[in-house]
Formats: sequence, structure tokens, C-alpha cells
Amino acid sequence: MAELPIAPVGRLLKNAGANRISDDAKEELAEVLESIGTEISEDAVKLAKHAGRKTVKAADIVLACRDL
Amino acid sequence: MAELPIAPVGRLLKNAGANRISDDAKEELAEVLESIGTEISEDAVKLAKHAGRKTVKAADIVLACRDL
Repeated sequence: MAELPIAPVGRLLKNAGANRISDDAKEELAEVLESIGTEISEDAVKLAKHAGRKTVKAADIVLACRDL
Repeated sequence: MAELPIAPVGRLLKNAGANRISDDAKEELAEVLESIGTEISEDAVKLAKHAGRKTVKAADIVLACRDL
């Protein structure tokens, strides 16, 4: 857990027009994105196995995002 | 754009049980997370302004995620 670095996530907020950003806002957003990314990843791994592959491909990610 | 680094996103897939991961799968997931993160960020900036603040706080992120 806690794989996503805080600074790039803070830049997403900056790019979205934030003047100032509290540290806990950056951490919160990083946690949310990590959680969503983990859900997509787990689904993508299942889809790759279902297709008889050991390699997760971009098509698995795309399909795993179908419910977003 | 392209703020999120690829390697940490690849680790999310690894942690989810992926044996092997194609480079384009990592890039696809990074793009998806960047897109979701940007949407949340734009909403959070609006919510902070709505509350009369210049600083985006964690509570803005939480509220911006209410529809996820």
C-alpha cells in the first residue's frame, strides 16, 4: 500500500486550478486513487487469467474500467 | 497531463497479483487514474471556492468523491 507518490497527485490538484492545497488533501486524493487503481488492477488480473494469459495487457485495463 | 509516474502504478498491478504486465497496461492504468484524479480535483477546487476558501482541504476531496 501507499505506492502512489504525493507530489504528482498534488500537481493534478494544481493543474485543476487549486491555489493552495493542504497536505492532507494531497494524501486523501492519493489514497482514493490508490484504492481505485487497486480495484481496477484486481479486476484486470482476473480478466487476464480468464483469457488464459499470464501477462496483463492494456485491453484488460480497458475492460476492467467498463463500470467506471 | 501525464503527471503520474508509471512505476508506482505498475506496483499496484503487481500487488494485485499480476505475474507479468505489459508496458501499455501500466500506461493505460496511469492515464485512467490521472483522468479520474483530474475530475475529482476539478470538483474539489469548485467545492473549496464554494466554501469561500483558497485552500483545497481533505474534506473537499472526500465530498468530490461522493459520486464514485
